[in-house]
Amino acid sequence: MVSINEKYLMLKGSYLFSTIAKKVNTFTKENPDKEIIRLGIGDVTQPLTPTITDALHKAVDEMGKAETFRGYAPDLGYEFLRNAVSENDYKARGCDIASDEIFISDGAKCDSGNIQEIFSVDNSIAVCDPVYPVYVDSNVMAGRGGEYNEITEGYSDIIYMPCVMENNFAPQLPAKVPDIIYLCFPNNPTGAVISKDELQNWVDYANKNGSVIIYDAAYEAYIRTEGVPHSIYECKGARTCAIELHSFSKNAGFTGVRLGYTVIPKDLERGGVSLHRLWARRHSTKYNGAPYIVQRAGEAVYSKKGKKEIKGLVDYYMNNASYIMNALREAGYTVSGGVDAPYIWLKTPDGMSSWEFFDHLLINANVVGTPGSGFGAHGEGYFRLTAFGSHENTKRAIDRIKAL
Amino acid sequence: MVSINEKYLMLKGSYLFSTIAKKVNTFTKENPDKEIIRLGIGDVTQPLTPTITDALHKAVDEMGKAETFRGYAPDLGYEFLRNAVSENDYKARGCDIASDEIFISDGAKCDSGNIQEIFSVDNSIAVCDPVYPVYVDSNVMAGRGGEYNEITEGYSDIIYMPCVMENNFAPQLPAKVPDIIYLCFPNNPTGAVISKDELQNWVDYANKNGSVIIYDAAYEAYIRTEGVPHSIYECKGARTCAIELHSFSKNAGFTGVRLGYTVIPKDLERGGVSLHRLWARRHSTKYNGAPYIVQRAGEAVYSKKGKKEIKGLVDYYMNNASYIMNALREAGYTVSGGVDAPYIWLKTPDGMSSWEFFDHLLINANVVGTPGSGFGAHGEGYFRLTAFGSHENTKRAIDRIKAL
Repeated sequence: MVSINEKYLMLKGSYLFSTIAKKVNTFTKENPDKEIIRLGIGDVTQPLTPTITDALHKAVDEMGKAETFRGYAPDLGYEFLRNAVSENDYKARGCDIASDEIFISDGAKCDSGNIQEIFSVDNSIAVCDPVYPVYVDSNVMAGRGGEYNEITEGYSDIIYMPCVMENNFAPQLPAKVPDIIYLCFPNNPTGAVISKDELQNWVDYANKNGSVIIYDAAYEAYIRTEGVPHSIYECKGARTCAIELHSFSKNAGFTGVRLGYTVIPKDLERGGVSLHRLWARRHSTKYNGAPYIVQRAGEAVYSKKGKKEIKGLVDYYMNNASYIMNALREAGYTVSGGVDAPYIWLKTPDGMSSWEFFDHLLINANVVGTPGSGFGAHGEGYFRLTAFGSHENTKRAIDRIKAL
Repeated sequence: MVSINEKYLMLKGSYLFSTIAKKVNTFTKENPDKEIIRLGIGDVTQPLTPTITDALHKAVDEMGKAETFRGYAPDLGYEFLRNAVSENDYKARGCDIASDEIFISDGAKCDSGNIQEIFSVDNSIAVCDPVYPVYVDSNVMAGRGGEYNEITEGYSDIIYMPCVMENNFAPQLPAKVPDIIYLCFPNNPTGAVISKDELQNWVDYANKNGSVIIYDAAYEAYIRTEGVPHSIYECKGARTCAIELHSFSKNAGFTGVRLGYTVIPKDLERGGVSLHRLWARRHSTKYNGAPYIVQRAGEAVYSKKGKKEIKGLVDYYMNNASYIMNALREAGYTVSGGVDAPYIWLKTPDGMSSWEFFDHLLINANVVGTPGSGFGAHGEGYFRLTAFGSHENTKRAIDRIKAL
């Protein structure tokens, strides 16, 4: 008789964004006349830029001709894309990452969910609190969670690193050393960043203790402040302790196109085994490559025209971020993030809980945000708004919130 | 200190097709003047058809305009595609599968590698021998393999079901009941099929014992013989014991486009837990949907024009299959498969081992096939050729083999 993976049953509730979607659907059904504005899920709204659609059209034409048709992609991804990543995202920043240390994938969500597989289930993990839920859930599903505690709202075997206003939303080095440390900067959901010196402390800590850092750099294109690192490989020694995840979703607007990559340096070994080799084995056994046409679109992101257009997209969303920040501050809200990140993190007013504020905004302003408590216990009393709406909708949503 | 997933180290050698690629690369480097013809990996060669490229172009244009841009896809996939699948692949065949029982993905390889995750690691699995390596490897990586035995060339905890000439390459119901049973018909690698009555026996066996069948229907478009089932849901009771995997790679030529789907009926429960719900949870936590443009291409496969074109592709490859079968039989080879499947399974001549025959063909005919032993111990002494080449290359490859 088959038995199921009982660890799935340890998961607390359903995936945050599925819950929000259900709440919004119910409200919409009951209030068909109300126009909802979504500043919740981190999904972009602006169309693909011309250089990207040109690259897609061209690749589609190639796929329609026998001479230029492409079947299965190489395991690691096409060299043209891996070279472009290595040159632009690494070598141009002085980071020593070769193209064969880059694994092309269909997105950072998949990679961040799957990467834990190459580690022992006995490993302990540390996450920021609040945190992007995928890091926690994927580890709970693998059996690294332990018991869920209703009072602390956390899993017994997971090391939570509180990120709150009092510590500038930057985690402290944990006293009990974790085996695997998830870091994401610019941070989702708080929008916080850390300096290169602070990140260097994490790299030194990991190297000293034999830990591995999984560094999620999905939002690096939003960094404006000098001295904030775009990649963990800007730090000395990161090649022996860090894996880095990247996305094309938030810079180039690929949320519906699906492309990302993971870097595992060949120097990164544990117990004499190369983590690069383990991930390569996972890729070749359980994955079959990102679509050729999508990889060509990724290449176009790094062209001269592509870069200019992508900068335009990022600027567009960062204008929204500034608008939200300024308007909410004027209205008396306590706001952070939004400077080097497309997320605005605000303190809920009048002692409301995160979900109370969610309902309040949904019902009275018809605006959808994300409750901070959905990202972890230390997100309670906070709320996330994203800068990914259109200018017009963002302005209207904020005007509605101000009018409450 | 981090430790790795030791179960990865239980894997025997590297993934079959990576090994072949390395051998071929070495040969090509040493013999730059030789022209290799590949009838090895099951990769298609014919371009996408006009209806598909039209759908892709149209969707790319939509993604380039703000009004029609699409971000994250729905968890299960777009309704337009799930409806088309439900109508065409199921309801039209009298199978009761609803569109919300269909999970769109980026391909059957990923799904067949990931599906085991929803089951307990204590479950036993049964596979055909020879077998598509992903079923075995993904279970070994999860810890269901046990020890590898060099003599039997198998894992101690896996139930192997020999498929050899003597039983018409159809597995027998195992005496020791497995929890999870992998079946693939039309079969990769042998090209064998089983009748609806035979498949009904498996469904009855699974229902009686509480087992779950993972039914890989990736090659169903190649079925020509009346009475051979296209879907396991043609059998009575399959809704309570079977998961079905589908691919768009081999019918529509999407190996480089990436699209597939998995069906889990809502009636399928074990221990009171819905397997549909578990897989939905995996999808929403560790996956982020197939690209919108690719899902539109999938929809086009089911259009009137699309169906006609896809039939043309399948006919094209099946002409190759007939050519290979007839020519090799004339030349004295013992050949099977190739009637309802794009794979030809031949007995190696003169008592050669599978890898000996691989080297023989590579060196003397410059033709790449796949050694049967790479698919399992009972594949030793067999060899797989695929019908996925161009007509011209297929003919030339077979002429070269005949001339040996």
